[in-house]
Amino acid sequence: MSKGRLTMNESGLDTSTILKWLVNDGYTVVACNIDVGQEEDWEDVEKKALAVGAERMIIRNKQKEFVEEIVFRSIQCNAIYEDRYLLGTSLARPIIARELVNVAKEFNCDYLSHGCTALAPGIKIIAPWRIPEFIAKFQGRADLLEYAKVNNIPVSSTPKAPWSMDANLVHCSYEAGILEDPNREPPKNLWTMTVDPVDAPDKPYHFSIDFQKGIPVKVTTEDGKEATDSVELFKLLNKIGHDNGVGRVDIVENRFIGLKSRGCYDSPGITLARLAHVDLEGLTLDSKVRELRDTFVTTAWTRQLYNGMYFSPEREFAENSVIFAQEGVNGTVKMMAYKGNAYTVGRSSETSNLYSEEDASMDSLDTFSPLDTTGFIAIQAIRLRKYGEAKIAQGKTL
Amino acid sequence: MSKGRLTMNESGLDTSTILKWLVNDGYTVVACNIDVGQEEDWEDVEKKALAVGAERMIIRNKQKEFVEEIVFRSIQCNAIYEDRYLLGTSLARPIIARELVNVAKEFNCDYLSHGCTALAPGIKIIAPWRIPEFIAKFQGRADLLEYAKVNNIPVSSTPKAPWSMDANLVHCSYEAGILEDPNREPPKNLWTMTVDPVDAPDKPYHFSIDFQKGIPVKVTTEDGKEATDSVELFKLLNKIGHDNGVGRVDIVENRFIGLKSRGCYDSPGITLARLAHVDLEGLTLDSKVRELRDTFVTTAWTRQLYNGMYFSPEREFAENSVIFAQEGVNGTVKMMAYKGNAYTVGRSSETSNLYSEEDASMDSLDTFSPLDTTGFIAIQAIRLRKYGEAKIAQGKTL
Amino acid sequence: MSKGRLTMNESGLDTSTILKWLVNDGYTVVACNIDVGQEEDWEDVEKKALAVGAERMIIRNKQKEFVEEIVFRSIQCNAIYEDRYLLGTSLARPIIARELVNVAKEFNCDYLSHGCTALAPGIKIIAPWRIPEFIAKFQGRADLLEYAKVNNIPVSSTPKAPWSMDANLVHCSYEAGILEDPNREPPKNLWTMTVDPVDAPDKPYHFSIDFQKGIPVKVTTEDGKEATDSVELFKLLNKIGHDNGVGRVDIVENRFIGLKSRGCYDSPGITLARLAHVDLEGLTLDSKVRELRDTFVTTAWTRQLYNGMYFSPEREFAENSVIFAQEGVNGTVKMMAYKGNAYTVGRSSETSNLYSEEDASMDSLDTFSPLDTTGFIAIQAIRLRKYGEAKIAQGKTL
Amino acid sequence: MSKGRLTMNESGLDTSTILKWLVNDGYTVVACNIDVGQEEDWEDVEKKALAVGAERMIIRNKQKEFVEEIVFRSIQCNAIYEDRYLLGTSLARPIIARELVNVAKEFNCDYLSHGCTALAPGIKIIAPWRIPEFIAKFQGRADLLEYAKVNNIPVSSTPKAPWSMDANLVHCSYEAGILEDPNREPPKNLWTMTVDPVDAPDKPYHFSIDFQKGIPVKVTTEDGKEATDSVELFKLLNKIGHDNGVGRVDIVENRFIGLKSRGCYDSPGITLARLAHVDLEGLTLDSKVRELRDTFVTTAWTRQLYNGMYFSPEREFAENSVIFAQEGVNGTVKMMAYKGNAYTVGRSSETSNLYSEEDASMDSLDTFSPLDTTGFIAIQAIRLRKYGEAKIAQGKTL
Repeated sequence: MSKGRLTMNESGLDTSTILKWLVNDGYTVVACNIDVGQEEDWEDVEKKALAVGAERMIIRNKQKEFVEEIVFRSIQCNAIYEDRYLLGTSLARPIIARELVNVAKEFNCDYLSHGCTALAPGIKIIAPWRIPEFIAKFQGRADLLEYAKVNNIPVSSTPKAPWSMDANLVHCSYEAGILEDPNREPPKNLWTMTVDPVDAPDKPYHFSIDFQKGIPVKVTTEDGKEATDSVELFKLLNKIGHDNGVGRVDIVENRFIGLKSRGCYDSPGITLARLAHVDLEGLTLDSKVRELRDTFVTTAWTRQLYNGMYFSPEREFAENSVIFAQEGVNGTVKMMAYKGNAYTVGRSSETSNLYSEEDASMDSLDTFSPLDTTGFIAIQAIRLRKYGEAKIAQGKTL
Repeated sequence: MSKGRLTMNESGLDTSTILKWLVNDGYTVVACNIDVGQEEDWEDVEKKALAVGAERMIIRNKQKEFVEEIVFRSIQCNAIYEDRYLLGTSLARPIIARELVNVAKEFNCDYLSHGCTALAPGIKIIAPWRIPEFIAKFQGRADLLEYAKVNNIPVSSTPKAPWSMDANLVHCSYEAGILEDPNREPPKNLWTMTVDPVDAPDKPYHFSIDFQKGIPVKVTTEDGKEATDSVELFKLLNKIGHDNGVGRVDIVENRFIGLKSRGCYDSPGITLARLAHVDLEGLTLDSKVRELRDTFVTTAWTRQLYNGMYFSPEREFAENSVIFAQEGVNGTVKMMAYKGNAYTVGRSSETSNLYSEEDASMDSLDTFSPLDTTGFIAIQAIRLRKYGEAKIAQGKTL
Repeated sequence: MSKGRLTMNESGLDTSTILKWLVNDGYTVVACNIDVGQEEDWEDVEKKALAVGAERMIIRNKQKEFVEEIVFRSIQCNAIYEDRYLLGTSLARPIIARELVNVAKEFNCDYLSHGCTALAPGIKIIAPWRIPEFIAKFQGRADLLEYAKVNNIPVSSTPKAPWSMDANLVHCSYEAGILEDPNREPPKNLWTMTVDPVDAPDKPYHFSIDFQKGIPVKVTTEDGKEATDSVELFKLLNKIGHDNGVGRVDIVENRFIGLKSRGCYDSPGITLARLAHVDLEGLTLDSKVRELRDTFVTTAWTRQLYNGMYFSPEREFAENSVIFAQEGVNGTVKMMAYKGNAYTVGRSSETSNLYSEEDASMDSLDTFSPLDTTGFIAIQAIRLRKYGEAKIAQGKTL
Repeated sequence: MSKGRLTMNESGLDTSTILKWLVNDGYTVVACNIDVGQEEDWEDVEKKALAVGAERMIIRNKQKEFVEEIVFRSIQCNAIYEDRYLLGTSLARPIIARELVNVAKEFNCDYLSHGCTALAPGIKIIAPWRIPEFIAKFQGRADLLEYAKVNNIPVSSTPKAPWSMDANLVHCSYEAGILEDPNREPPKNLWTMTVDPVDAPDKPYHFSIDFQKGIPVKVTTEDGKEATDSVELFKLLNKIGHDNGVGRVDIVENRFIGLKSRGCYDSPGITLARLAHVDLEGLTLDSKVRELRDTFVTTAWTRQLYNGMYFSPEREFAENSVIFAQEGVNGTVKMMAYKGNAYTVGRSSETSNLYSEEDASMDSLDTFSPLDTTGFIAIQAIRLRKYGEAKIAQGKTL
């Protein structure tokens, strides 16, 4: 008799092993895989899952939700972790978790085998790592491999790279294995989503991105391509970035739990979109709103996503601010990609331009007079003068 | 009879005009120019100042102070304004202001003609823009030019670029004129401190930077160059950046007073140094210290410099934190520059490596067990589960 | 012939003098006074303005807008400046500025004499302090008094207190005069909106405040009073605070321009409302939302109001967050006022209680196990252990 | 044979039970209790520990370290958690943890039974809650009581209060039991460190606190008491607070792990010291330094202590800033305590007064002119005017 119906994410050797173990332990397993843009032979994935013992294999394409609900939010707030990482894996996680719960409900599952615990009242979370027998059996990676062998779990025939990878529409990450030495340059054949800048075309490639409320709504290229659908335009940005070698990141980062970890990331499209968005905000976002948003909201939203806190009140709180600030971020950014880098070469906004050539030139005395500036500086100086006098009185230098 | 002795910064047509006006108004003027790395024919500068009527022309080389006291601080805290601008002009200003005061004291001046007011108890600040007669005479740029002509103030024979420039060791800025249209790409001949990436060498150029307490102490290149003197190593970084087209910035930024302004900046060396420093902190700086420093201290120090608040208690307060955090930022970053971009290709630290391959691989169960991670997640989840239940009870979706 | 029609705020000797000067200078003046809860003999105010030469005197009761649009916002975000000051004067200013503009429009005025400049496109702002003749005439307070005397401007017959006062529904401020010595205790007869705690009743007074979305919607007292109208309930809180001596503040504060200033403030009702609101958030607001709101939003909104930046995009940005966070701040706070202080003695929320006696007691092992806590701590400790080891290796102590 | 030597904190029924269990399990236990100001019959404590089986009982008076290294730091940065809680328990924890490690080293212990794990390289931490047999035995509080009974562990003869308490020099906390209902007022007999305000003297009590670098160095009272020793002056403040009923706090707070919990706290002396310190900073701390310190440093240090992160690089980082900012916080604050509240009635500083009666009165035109203020406002207004025009152009109201 079945111990019950259980949904789980099936996506490789580790999860296949867990699947097998759960089947052997008496669960009826609804295997599931969420398509967030990773390259997979979906037929093969299904075949394997059924071979290992899943009752069925559900595959769901959630690329559109991924791009529109999460990736575009990250662009709207210029999310970036520790100055470099654009969050690719963290962005996909909430989409996957939510869809797993949906599948569990649709197929009347009582259990969900996953790390997330916040989403599914009424569905029991099973974390095999928490089950004593499982812990006893699998002390390390070798035990997983052994179990796979004994149980005829199909192992990929492609020789495995000496690092681990995780890909979706936004990025591909490369970690562990030979990359664990932070002083070792990643091998040339590591990168899958960008060509080596050295091998990129010798001519700059021009394109432009249109934004509405901080969201990319159109990409146009010098060779006549145009995309307006969210997923299509993001894929076009990925292609531009790929061809011109834009978006490689290689860092030592701080994990949520405090440990340091070396990661390499290919993130072509989001790098271009973020760069253009930052630039357009220069033209269209008020200085003080930007300062507050940068200091508090961008940092908060970024950490919430990085730390797996998407389904939280604080993420909703931060995101409400992200969206509010983008009301006037409308316009077009002209860009150029060339051999590993991208440049903004012009920006304009018909409806929300807060820049004025006239004000900027300061030639016109109508707006404010030099006396105003003098007064402004004089007022600022009162406090500083006072402070300087105090220091000098104490025999200190400035 | 002289109205008194006065020190002023003499550095071009505008200031020459003011100098003349002050001389005509009865002041004895000690002209002065601080060498913070700008390219000048210093003999010619002196000749002109004397011709216009200065009593003498003092030229002071303050490059070393500039690099060590200010530029290296900005690198230590990864200072960046509005995600892009590396503060070149703002970094030089305090050095210039302080040295002007020193000169005023040395030459027994009663007056100082400058924007700063906080530095010089006992010396009266004269801002010509505050003097009614001056304001009446000079309503705009045309009046300055007319006055220069009438008074035989020597105007540079080089045809003037259709934009204004300000250069020092760290950067050259380009503003105003044809650049006031933010949708117009800067002309190819604008940039003076970097070659066009398209014209840069076709081969990556490798070099490395050594840091001690977050300060660059050595630069070594693939072709055997090595620099350890502060100014020399910074110039070497400038050269690497120059040759490989690294460090061009083109933005619409928000001025202190809230106006938007378009600026282009060439900042080769500081771009490389900052990139390397950010990378080394990944290896050597604690995650929580970094988070606090990034959110509060870097943003504060950056704004203080941008807003001209160097001689202030708040800058001292922020800088104290900047320095404290850098105690362990020691090590070497290997880099590569190529056609407009620079990449980190390795980093190491003998004394302050907080990264551990062993911990990172998580293969060893000594440090912590999967049960720990499970518990960590379970604890985090209590609050989120509670929140999710409340939302569902209210009929909302997650 | 009139120089034009002009609106100005008429509220005392200083403004009467300006009014007279403007009338003498040829303006037709629509005098105006906004009732934000200050005690005035409005008939007398009108009579005086007409006597000085105003075309008419407009009096507008804006207490309701004041309470609902501004005061309740400050309560929703627990606004407080420099740990002590509850912003009374700053809260009223935007209401006054906006209504002046409305009056100017209604009475077809071309000019507005006021400090604000951001509100009224099409209406020219006149700041007499900017007009050279005015500056020449009035160098100090003595000149104002002299001008008033010469021009028969009626001066209040009440002997003037040796400090200045500014009152509205929220508070009365006392500044300048004998208060300029920060080491001098304010005299007993200074305070107008609170009794001396020593003279307050010898028995605690119990009452409760109901909140919806962080806004006070009902006040109920031990002696059967009840108020639900916004202005009425705020006045009832003022009375409770008054009678029990709650809400006196005496500080040295930092003005926007950086100068220090000593201010005393009577703020009975808002002190009680803020205290109750802070308490209710303990029960109903998520911990992480509260942390973000406290650190960023409360501080930002408070400074924006204090600095006169109400009509700004950054205030709108902050306020959007304030409101969003209050969705679940519903419930009742039971309080007690007694001789200068107020205490919360109970709080409850039917709809948005995030507190659970069961979870809090931690007796039930269903929610999480001691092992979870152990794991949580163990994970936290990895980073700290590593850091401790590094310090000890360097020969330092912890 | 002994399983090894082990140090543990012995301070009540729970720890006595653990002690017994560890002894029974074969450990040689060095029991230990750190005197941080709690009221205990130390002889009785020792007798009990030996009776339960400890090899010895070590008692260490660490009040001075507690006050000088931790409590005074909290005063220097005005630490406060969630607007109300003054951190009493959290402040004592680091002192206890550090001394336990010292004792473990002195008595050659191999093990330490405690929650902390970061402090003691070379000493193994034993958390009984992590040992499966212990978990199996003690599922809840009832099991502890049963084990105590069976093993003749002496239970206090005083009838236990229906809540739990934790006392030290700074505060006494009251939690759990009947307090778990947040709508129930704490009983009158709960509070141990303050008299009921209703029962406090009918006359205000005057005293003053002298600070050097933000640290209290002298307390002087109206009845001639004076204390300068750190512990003595803190005890005197406790007495003043006690007698006048100052420092009661009753809140629902958010625990580190996110759960809400109701806590009542008696914190007389630290309430007075913090209030005086906040006030003195008004006179002596620069406005911008204060703003940065309040927003970032105070909040960070407070959370680090609350979350048990004292022995961390981030606490050292924050504390470095705390201390730096206090250089000029020198002076005297005159205060008055009366029936549950305390008031500042004057403040002065001979050496670091940044307040100037002259500047504050703004009567002198030497410092700055009205024109300066006008200019200051005009400059601020450019951005706001631009924003207002844009809104009106969009058909919105201000």
